Amino acid sequence: MIKINIICIGNLKEKYLKDAQEEYLKRLTRYASIKLIEVNEAKILSFDNAALIEKTKENEAVNALKFVKKDDYLVLMDLHGKELSSEDLAKGFSNLVSTNTRDIDIVIGGTLGLGESLLKRSNYRICLSKLTFPHQITRIILLEQLYRIFKINNNESYHH
Amino acid sequence: MIKINIICIGNLKEKYLKDAQEEYLKRLTRYASIKLIEVNEAKILSFDNAALIEKTKENEAVNALKFVKKDDYLVLMDLHGKELSSEDLAKGFSNLVSTNTRDIDIVIGGTLGLGESLLKRSNYRICLSKLTFPHQITRIILLEQLYRIFKINNNESYHH
Repeated sequence: MIKINIICIGNLKEKYLKDAQEEYLKRLTRYASIKLIEVNEAKILSFDNAALIEKTKENEAVNALKFVKKDDYLVLMDLHGKELSSEDLAKGFSNLVSTNTRDIDIVIGGTLGLGESLLKRSNYRICLSKLTFPHQITRIILLEQLYRIFKINNNESYHH
Repeated sequence: MIKINIICIGNLKEKYLKDAQEEYLKRLTRYASIKLIEVNEAKILSFDNAALIEKTKENEAVNALKFVKKDDYLVLMDLHGKELSSEDLAKGFSNLVSTNTRDIDIVIGGTLGLGESLLKRSNYRICLSKLTFPHQITRIILLEQLYRIFKINNNESYHH
């Protein structure tokens, strides 16, 4: 079974997001072994100090990378990544898992975004939207897309 | 206060989505008078009959258009619409409300998408993402983006 580690910088506060996450994780158990890892997000008291922001973001990146093994295929959810249709994403995912036996790690950055060392280590970057979403909602969108991808790749109907 | 009617084809089933909707509608009361309208989504027993699908989609469109007044500015959430950043969306929205005193209607199609008469009547079409999202999640994303837009346009901090 495909192993996917979803590494999230920051956690979910709202119950409705936790419930949504739980629902999709449950649905996904049929298709993949998914491990969800939460890395602490730094508390930012001021967004005015750019150097401090960069340093904090990089600290978060280093903490996230502790969960990325040497041979893992690392995907980032990144506003500057590639935009794909769900069908193309499903196709790319299918190619990846058929040619690759490594674990797949997917990182969702926190409020600050993705630190430099994550960008450098990454194998692929996906842009969900030109719009900025809260990372908490990005997590739910990612889980739903993963579910959609497995449905597409298994020729199972999914009309929502 | 700006009047926005969000016209949704189909309803929310999951409690976590209803809770998310309620939360954002509550947050938005400070900025706009938002009315959420649900139009029945047709039950589709088979997706094989293209003519029937088109007819059903058009019926849904006609039902949605009953809530669109003659002078309303009609926005569609549409996979084939324009992709914008949150900042550009905020700017466009700000321009719209400063030059326009009409109500704004935003339609989210159902599982089948948007019927022809909705496309014809529309003033603007926005694409959230090249990815296909369930219309229920699109509704939450839209509410969050509206909230984000008001925060941006009021120079209020919003780091999520």
